[in-house]
Amino acid sequence: MLYLVGLGLGDAKDITVRGLEIVKAADQVYLEAYTSILTVGQEALESFYGREIIVADREFVEQKAESFIESARNSNIAFLVVGDPFGATTHTDLVLRAKEVGVPFQVVHNTSILNAVGCCGLQLYSFGETVSIPFWTETWKPDSFLEKIEGNLERGLHTLCLLDIKVKEQTVENMMKNRPIFEPPRFMSNQQAAKQLIEIVNSRNHTTRLTGETLCVGVARVGWPDQKISACTLQEMITCELGQPLHSLVIVGKIHPLELDFLRMFSPDIVPLNG
Amino acid sequence: MLYLVGLGLGDAKDITVRGLEIVKAADQVYLEAYTSILTVGQEALESFYGREIIVADREFVEQKAESFIESARNSNIAFLVVGDPFGATTHTDLVLRAKEVGVPFQVVHNTSILNAVGCCGLQLYSFGETVSIPFWTETWKPDSFLEKIEGNLERGLHTLCLLDIKVKEQTVENMMKNRPIFEPPRFMSNQQAAKQLIEIVNSRNHTTRLTGETLCVGVARVGWPDQKISACTLQEMITCELGQPLHSLVIVGKIHPLELDFLRMFSPDIVPLNG
Repeated sequence: MLYLVGLGLGDAKDITVRGLEIVKAADQVYLEAYTSILTVGQEALESFYGREIIVADREFVEQKAESFIESARNSNIAFLVVGDPFGATTHTDLVLRAKEVGVPFQVVHNTSILNAVGCCGLQLYSFGETVSIPFWTETWKPDSFLEKIEGNLERGLHTLCLLDIKVKEQTVENMMKNRPIFEPPRFMSNQQAAKQLIEIVNSRNHTTRLTGETLCVGVARVGWPDQKISACTLQEMITCELGQPLHSLVIVGKIHPLELDFLRMFSPDIVPLNG
Repeated sequence: MLYLVGLGLGDAKDITVRGLEIVKAADQVYLEAYTSILTVGQEALESFYGREIIVADREFVEQKAESFIESARNSNIAFLVVGDPFGATTHTDLVLRAKEVGVPFQVVHNTSILNAVGCCGLQLYSFGETVSIPFWTETWKPDSFLEKIEGNLERGLHTLCLLDIKVKEQTVENMMKNRPIFEPPRFMSNQQAAKQLIEIVNSRNHTTRLTGETLCVGVARVGWPDQKISACTLQEMITCELGQPLHSLVIVGKIHPLELDFLRMFSPDIVPLNG
């Protein structure tokens, strides 16, 4: 059996009781390590589970999926995923492949930022389409996510912006010379995301609904003991320090009085222009 | 301390390890019993936790919130919520009130249908605004959710339709005579929801993007051992039997080939007109 087990927001104890039972009883335990991060290290997780963990990077999952799935035909394989197993296309694909070759699978759901973002008080049913904001390079500055934010704002909806994560990146030189040397992981901050968004707004000559005055919420380390939430304008978000990763950014649409009251627990002085 | 603990999809073992520790150590344990349902009865939960549980209905939470919150000032109160604690406005309000009177609180997130719906293979980032479909009465047939579905379809997005739950309902007669007699709980099925949607489409003389031919996905008992998923047209959904509650309905927007492959695991014959 192939078990896809969601780990939730990243602390060892965020696993469900059912998930923990599966991990303890599995023949082999893999940890997906490229779409999100844990609060705790691999060792802490191994000691909590009382099990050895094999870290699976993107290369492993995408290139060795076949033999990995095959091994679940006659043994119990637990594949651990931060958040919910269906949060990333790669895992949906894994399930599909297992089904195609007749390997049985089970999914243990867990929370992901998609519903945990409710911690800032914005109502989940008032969110529109979620967007992903990638790191820009000097030559690659995609901005197609702006149209989605604009579409949400037009309808008064909030937008959850998932911020880029770069794990196991290689420099072009190392890649060309086939040297397995990897850059330190990078996590986009709320500040970086706000900066890129302001740059897009400027490049459109301020013809967008999104402006420097749009109310935003930065959330950091959601569900962790040092969770931090801060609401301010998009322009102010550029200098709003939220500390260690992971960060997400919410663009606020039409705000309800209850939502505003809730946000003022974190940022008492906010005045929504888009209320 | 007031702990709001998410129970996830409804089985006793869907609670997180951290959530279970809090329940076991709390002075009092309340269970919210009006926005969703559990797979298991109160007794099974009590025996699993080794704790007595006080069932809190909507009346309790909305009318006795003050004394309930106050009791958390000097003792540990665990308030259990099916799904994620921020899934319903009532619970957001509870946190806000606790904050206002200076009672400390903590939230333990868990999965909710908002991300668990990914089990049908439709990608979560391709969902637009979520809608709620209420039970119609003879004289009250709201249809404002159609505009939201239309807005999502226009942008190629899927729509998660949460279906109505009626718990502790009174007949008008019993209510007027102040008799505490309650009707059996009712849960809207995928079939009922499809029927109401078709009625709306008909009443608009088929000028809507949503039609009887629109691809839909019915999901039932997500995350439970007898989970059922079925994809067909909205018209066919009227006769698509998914068994016991809870049901949700997804209106499919623009479908990606990987999503279609995944849906065909459940319904091999579907032909998307809206691909």
